[in-house]
Amino acid sequence: KTLNEVLFFPSEVACMEHIFSPASPNSCCCPLPHGVETSFTRLLRFILSASSSLDLCLFSFSNMDLCRAVLYLYRRKITVRVLVDKEYSVITGSQVGALRKAGICVRNVGRYVHMHHKFALVDGRRLITGSLNWTLAAVQCNSENVLVTEEPRLVQPFVGEFCRLWAANDPS
Amino acid sequence: KTLNEVLFFPSEVACMEHIFSPASPNSCCCPLPHGVETSFTRLLRFILSASSSLDLCLFSFSNMDLCRAVLYLYRRKITVRVLVDKEYSVITGSQVGALRKAGICVRNVGRYVHMHHKFALVDGRRLITGSLNWTLAAVQCNSENVLVTEEPRLVQPFVGEFCRLWAANDPS
Ligand SMILES: [Zn+2]
Ligand SMILES: [Zn+2]
Repeated sequence: KTLNEVLFFPSEVACMEHIFSPASPNSCCCPLPHGVETSFTRLLRFILSASSSLDLCLFSFSNMDLCRAVLYLYRRKITVRVLVDKEYSVITGSQVGALRKAGICVRNVGRYVHMHHKFALVDGRRLITGSLNWTLAAVQCNSENVLVTEEPRLVQPFVGEFCRLWAANDPS
Repeated sequence: KTLNEVLFFPSEVACMEHIFSPASPNSCCCPLPHGVETSFTRLLRFILSASSSLDLCLFSFSNMDLCRAVLYLYRRKITVRVLVDKEYSVITGSQVGALRKAGICVRNVGRYVHMHHKFALVDGRRLITGSLNWTLAAVQCNSENVLVTEEPRLVQPFVGEFCRLWAANDPS
């Protein structure tokens, strides 16, 4: 059956180490609860499920766990493309610099007052979208939603929107 | 086939008079283009398609055309319930006062840092959700998305979220 799932936030605050180091689940000694499954671990797992590509179109990107997930995929040869709002890509705490430094291709979108999307396309066929900005406050404090779907009539328009914005914001 | 549609913004700037006065499409003499179908007219039509109820859960609500659509439904005996972010409901241009003045039941959500949802449930079975805040800038200036779906696995969790937030924010 077609994947169609909704995640709600705020997410319970918990350590994400078991997501990134499943082989050594007890390796972390931070004070947060460990091994807990939350909306946020589920979101991270959907992102980490990429086997060929990850396209991100984000208003803001300051969440360090989400940044870690993207860098993890990039190091495993997943093709990563990132579109970010021009203004918000330079605010304090933005992880956009870390992505660029790692070698990931990031393009600023500056044609609109705000590029207010917050969606990810996994392998070009799984859409993750909603109200959730990729910040710490959004995940831990706000009332937010994220839809995850493989319904082609929802996914395909977003694939088109990503391609359109990617091409329109080619700096070269 | 199950309704699954995506609308992208910014929407072309046009007059919405033909949506509200279909019987007299040439009645308006404002300088905007008339009779044009845009992402925004389509969004308004989905909202106005309510035949029994409209539940709104919104971070911000300052768009006057969207306010007009909600008041139009309310006057036609559609049951309207509105949840808004406590902080943003009092900003300049907010239409929340106009809704309350008309008699619509509006509840402030103040438990979270922000109630950042921006969704509508039409007749309890059609979900309208995305990145789009119900403001003028979002509709006319920003790059935004709105999903419209009747897929039960997407709609039902939002029905649950609305009921949960509605009950949790009963002022009495
Ligand atoms: Zn830990
Ligand atoms: Zn007009």
